[in-house]
Amino acid sequence: MSLFRLDASIFPTTSASRALADLVEAEWAASHPDSTVTRRDLATDPVPATAWADAVAGGFIADAQLTSAQIEARVLATAVADELIGADALLFAVPLYNYGISQHFKSWFDLAYTDSRIGPSGTTLLGKPATLVTVLGGNYAPGTPKDGWDHSTGWLRRVLEDVWGLDLRVVLRPFTLVGVNPALDDFADTARELKQAAETAARAYGQELAALRHGQVA
Amino acid sequence: MSLFRLDASIFPTTSASRALADLVEAEWAASHPDSTVTRRDLATDPVPATAWADAVAGGFIADAQLTSAQIEARVLATAVADELIGADALLFAVPLYNYGISQHFKSWFDLAYTDSRIGPSGTTLLGKPATLVTVLGGNYAPGTPKDGWDHSTGWLRRVLEDVWGLDLRVVLRPFTLVGVNPALDDFADTARELKQAAETAARAYGQELAALRHGQVA
Repeated sequence: MSLFRLDASIFPTTSASRALADLVEAEWAASHPDSTVTRRDLATDPVPATAWADAVAGGFIADAQLTSAQIEARVLATAVADELIGADALLFAVPLYNYGISQHFKSWFDLAYTDSRIGPSGTTLLGKPATLVTVLGGNYAPGTPKDGWDHSTGWLRRVLEDVWGLDLRVVLRPFTLVGVNPALDDFADTARELKQAAETAARAYGQELAALRHGQVA
Repeated sequence: MSLFRLDASIFPTTSASRALADLVEAEWAASHPDSTVTRRDLATDPVPATAWADAVAGGFIADAQLTSAQIEARVLATAVADELIGADALLFAVPLYNYGISQHFKSWFDLAYTDSRIGPSGTTLLGKPATLVTVLGGNYAPGTPKDGWDHSTGWLRRVLEDVWGLDLRVVLRPFTLVGVNPALDDFADTARELKQAAETAARAYGQELAALRHGQVA
């Protein structure tokens, strides 16, 4: 058995998404103590800014004509895709940044999506169990002043569920900046409840992920 | 007078967003033949994948303790912000990629947003005239099968209008893959009309941008 884990937080030591993903991973490890965990840490090892364009451009060129940059990009795309395809279950920890998608995750996805096995016509990941942990600094839920300002989670679900067809569960923790930004101090109780709910979800989805059977955990 | 223009397409020679932005720029040039045009081309000169995290981390450290990477990131952030602040009008050409935000544009925005003049508390760009040209390979309008799959334009408007407070006009051209992807051949007439409408809007908004007075062009 093997798990693939991706982290996109740029601050590994204080990351709220990593802390939640650790709970998911702990459930996995409890069920599969001898399993392999393949990690891709986009903070310490981000996809180079030129890789995706090089990989796309290389797709229109005969192999013998590829530049060294295009070859490198294809090798990296293959490695990234191999990690997803080779794992029995997937775990993604991806914060919202600046009301939008993590640049690191988008660069990684764009590159991965150039591999034909998991590209527009690929079906290799269909039905694979996956957990997405995502965290938001604010709270953008319906009824809040910034309702609609989360432009990240919708896209993450779109590509993971609708494009790749993963069997996805989502752990979402809003208000991670409460306790960090004094302007949000009034929301301490709400933030605590949201954190606890996210931790409960992370453990439950971690058990489901370990069982490789979503929605069937007792 | 000066114009700042940013291009995010990874394929400069065949870019639909560049072609539309050229129409906007032509109107600007017709009104201001001697003006400066500052360009930032994210295809040929993308923001390095590590720059944003380095700039953010550097914000928490005394200047004397900064690493050379953090200093470089701050210098680049300042240069990027200077280009926006120094221009009388702004032109952005940003395609949707993989149903989401251009990774190149997000990396650029994240970095720019670390400069305090245009960061969360900055108001330097408030009311500055700007045109956004954006293009979509498919058509994600209400009533289409992929209604809701454009996860890019909403965020672009969010940060340009709501966060930076630009006086923004948006030229949107869907269906740029018609004529490229044979599966979309049935939509040739619709795509032609959408292209013409976008070109008309690009010229009109180009005139408004040149007049620095949105909504007041005869």
